[in-house]
Amino acid sequence: MSKLFMFEKPLGMRDTFPHLYEAKHTLKKIMEETVNGWGYRFIETPTLEYYETVGEASAILDQQLFKLLDQQGHTLVLRPDMTAPIARVAASKLLKDERPLRLAYTANVFRAQQREGGRPAEFEQVGIECIGDASVSADGEVIALMVSVLRETGLKNFKISIGHIGFVHALFKQILGTEERANILRRYLYEKNYVGYRRHIENLSLSSIDKKRLLSFLNLRGEQASLDKAFPLLEGNEEGRKALAQLQELWAILCDFGVEDFVKFDLSLVSHMSYYSGILFEVYADNVGYAIGNGGRYNKLLEKFGKQSGATGFALRVDYTLEALGTLSFESDLECVLFSAERRKEAIELAGILRKQGKKVVLQDWKGIDEVDDFSKRFSDVHYFIGRSQRQVDDDA
Amino acid sequence: MSKLFMFEKPLGMRDTFPHLYEAKHTLKKIMEETVNGWGYRFIETPTLEYYETVGEASAILDQQLFKLLDQQGHTLVLRPDMTAPIARVAASKLLKDERPLRLAYTANVFRAQQREGGRPAEFEQVGIECIGDASVSADGEVIALMVSVLRETGLKNFKISIGHIGFVHALFKQILGTEERANILRRYLYEKNYVGYRRHIENLSLSSIDKKRLLSFLNLRGEQASLDKAFPLLEGNEEGRKALAQLQELWAILCDFGVEDFVKFDLSLVSHMSYYSGILFEVYADNVGYAIGNGGRYNKLLEKFGKQSGATGFALRVDYTLEALGTLSFESDLECVLFSAERRKEAIELAGILRKQGKKVVLQDWKGIDEVDDFSKRFSDVHYFIGRSQRQVDDDA
Repeated sequence: MSKLFMFEKPLGMRDTFPHLYEAKHTLKKIMEETVNGWGYRFIETPTLEYYETVGEASAILDQQLFKLLDQQGHTLVLRPDMTAPIARVAASKLLKDERPLRLAYTANVFRAQQREGGRPAEFEQVGIECIGDASVSADGEVIALMVSVLRETGLKNFKISIGHIGFVHALFKQILGTEERANILRRYLYEKNYVGYRRHIENLSLSSIDKKRLLSFLNLRGEQASLDKAFPLLEGNEEGRKALAQLQELWAILCDFGVEDFVKFDLSLVSHMSYYSGILFEVYADNVGYAIGNGGRYNKLLEKFGKQSGATGFALRVDYTLEALGTLSFESDLECVLFSAERRKEAIELAGILRKQGKKVVLQDWKGIDEVDDFSKRFSDVHYFIGRSQRQVDDDA
Repeated sequence: MSKLFMFEKPLGMRDTFPHLYEAKHTLKKIMEETVNGWGYRFIETPTLEYYETVGEASAILDQQLFKLLDQQGHTLVLRPDMTAPIARVAASKLLKDERPLRLAYTANVFRAQQREGGRPAEFEQVGIECIGDASVSADGEVIALMVSVLRETGLKNFKISIGHIGFVHALFKQILGTEERANILRRYLYEKNYVGYRRHIENLSLSSIDKKRLLSFLNLRGEQASLDKAFPLLEGNEEGRKALAQLQELWAILCDFGVEDFVKFDLSLVSHMSYYSGILFEVYADNVGYAIGNGGRYNKLLEKFGKQSGATGFALRVDYTLEALGTLSFESDLECVLFSAERRKEAIELAGILRKQGKKVVLQDWKGIDEVDDFSKRFSDVHYFIGRSQRQVDDDA
């Protein structure tokens, strides 16, 4: 093996060096404290789960899963998201004692990448799940909390797009008749390929009125008024009307939370997470080209684990949120106590005193370094204890 | 698949519920701040590494590795330790700019388990690596820092056993001649199977003097004086004498750090980490049956990544350290603001005020809960905003 290869990392895998680590650490701390403040409690689940349980429930495409075999012949996956593992934990244990459950996590998730130079295959999310509350209040709380978390980080220019998958299902079913035909259109929406969507509709054998309904649907975006425009499109469809009524209630809640400036509706919003069953959302920041977070209601996921329960939550990507914030500057204000063996004890004492003052202090034997000048440059201050101390010299005299 | 199976987790995998999570979180924070105070900076490496690079360098037994194939046909491993990945990072990038490098990590590592109910297959370590300093001062700093970290956590009864793998190699090579014969004895020592060790020696074709040397070797434990007793055993072997001289220097350093009460020597100490090349150590707490942490010098590991560099470090297990500390109690002092839709806005306002005071506050729509009494029990205080407010009633009158 060539030496170059010794340094290589698997596709999509990254190292995080101290400067970026410290920025991430600070960001996560703010996020976690905000989430804690709203009464959400953090849990941890294993990195590896069974494919047949959590892997299949996760709604991530199979080719994006990292799979392995354990010694018993079961297929394992590296968790591709945290919602499915938390649903497992909630259904098996925690929901018995506590309902609604407010849980949170900071965790790495894994999605295999196909190309060099693509997106990260391992990335960190801070997220929450509110399980066991089917009311629209829970949807409102989750979105308001996401706004609160992002504002606490200092992010200013972000917007949450809110849709309702029940509305999309109802409209498509009414007009297209079959799930198969609806799926094709949903895929265009998920990929945000609106040109493809329009072209596809032109070629469908539908009345010109229905075609118009499917096309005007794309324009149902913006403030609360866009909900009013949505009702006529439904031609009385009950499921669709319920969805819109939920969005109207949600709007009132978000206004009470005072976060209405951070949200807008996008009724064509569709997620790649197939478990979403109601209100769903994505958050975008001005200077980042992809969603920095997303979430929604997933009432059916708990059923896979044998429980009937309303549930909603969000996940924010730590890397993208940091990107949205731009460069965070962190002072690496490091001092150094440089010593030779004769004066080691004095050096240790001073380092201890400085550390008690809250300073970060490197203690360094000069024998351990090659270049004192180069070495010293890294510190805001260097204290020297080299050679025999004055005290010793005096004693000897 | 039966529903029971939906809840199962792979062998050795665990969930961490809120109470334990918060204890771990608090513990890690103390550890990380102490490590930061000594000028070590945290980094992160990927969970997945190439088997041919980091996997093979890691010195963990092959059957303990979680392996998988990527889409390019390479074998990947879930990192079984953090020392090898950090050696990769140091050798490829960071050592160019900075030497010595003081790096730290908090990370999960993975070691496959063979049996149900065995040890965890995924566990968290807080550790440091001091790379690029070959002096005994670096070994002393690493041990003194480990003592400092453990004392900051509040742990009182712990002891660090210190040995020197160079001494073991030298003695065994001198008496046994071949690596093969030495390996058998080292294995007994690593397993701490002293009965097996003694029996094996009895059956070796060696002079009674050499047998006695190998047996008395086991008694070289305790204070500094045990080093003096070790010299005669070596019969002038130069490599062995160097190792003992390093341990003497280390003792003087540890005395200057004032941590001598927390250490003892054990010259028969051997690690399963084959990359150790000099001073090595394990730390034991009174009420935990296995080492809560370990470390040592691994000058040869960097060579695998094409760099000549002295390096030493330690890793502490978060789970075992928590076990050593016993039950940590954390108040989950949670308040609740319970509301109905009419008074949602007032409820949101109060929750906001309480959170600004640093309180953890659940905001709950009464519609989202089944049993108000059961629900309320979980909180230290519940504020009710149910029905129309007095203000509204007055306005209506």
